[in-house]
Amino acid sequence: MATNPGHEDELGVNLSIEEARISLKEGCGHNQRIQKSSATLHGEISALEAAGRVSAALYRNSTMYTTLSPCGMCTGAILLYRIPRVVIGENVNFMGGEDLLKQNGVEVVVLDNQDCKDMMSKFIQERPEDWYEDIGEERV
Amino acid sequence: MATNPGHEDELGVNLSIEEARISLKEGCGHNQRIQKSSATLHGEISALEAAGRVSAALYRNSTMYTTLSPCGMCTGAILLYRIPRVVIGENVNFMGGEDLLKQNGVEVVVLDNQDCKDMMSKFIQERPEDWYEDIGEERV
Repeated sequence: MATNPGHEDELGVNLSIEEARISLKEGCGHNQRIQKSSATLHGEISALEAAGRVSAALYRNSTMYTTLSPCGMCTGAILLYRIPRVVIGENVNFMGGEDLLKQNGVEVVVLDNQDCKDMMSKFIQERPEDWYEDIGEERV
Repeated sequence: MATNPGHEDELGVNLSIEEARISLKEGCGHNQRIQKSSATLHGEISALEAAGRVSAALYRNSTMYTTLSPCGMCTGAILLYRIPRVVIGENVNFMGGEDLLKQNGVEVVVLDNQDCKDMMSKFIQERPEDWYEDIGEERV
């Protein structure tokens, strides 16, 4: 399965970077965990919610764009809806369920995008408690 | 790892049966997918949302009770928060991510509860479109 990024993938991730910037500015989200006192509104879950109740066929012709490698829950949501392709900004700051996605036939494209890496590492450094809560860890 | 149900497990699943009955009566949810036009509020996600933002330590001392074997997304949410134990009413009408849970060290207890089986099979029979949407499938 091809994993080379195309021009559209850059555009898609750029949109997810913009969403993440909005989130960061607002408090922490599109991830909206803090804004909505939510335990589940990571960026990917939030995107699925924003898309609303759509047909199974639509999911199966979709690409999920995300700034960061998806956590276990978001990986599971991608698998539930059989989204066939996931474009990931970076997986240096956090490696999520990419292996599980690939094992289930999902095409995974990792852009290793510098903006994504910078934004995430800054967030982790400045707000470690929010970050550890995001990934279900105690603050270390 | 022990997988024998105890008295508390029956009580926990009885509560989740009550929640499912409320859901069914309301329209379809605690699963609240229909009530809230949501793509992600399965019973388990809804329970995590209802619990709110709690500490990692609390999740790690929790049991998730659910009437039905959890789908891929809900399995992933259980793994994200490292919930160590899942008590499942039944897995006859749907087999979710139980293997993945066990592979990750989660204790899985399946009660094979008749009320759960009856309620779910009735729901699937009466409202197949809602059911297939729940599990990310086209109606067959």
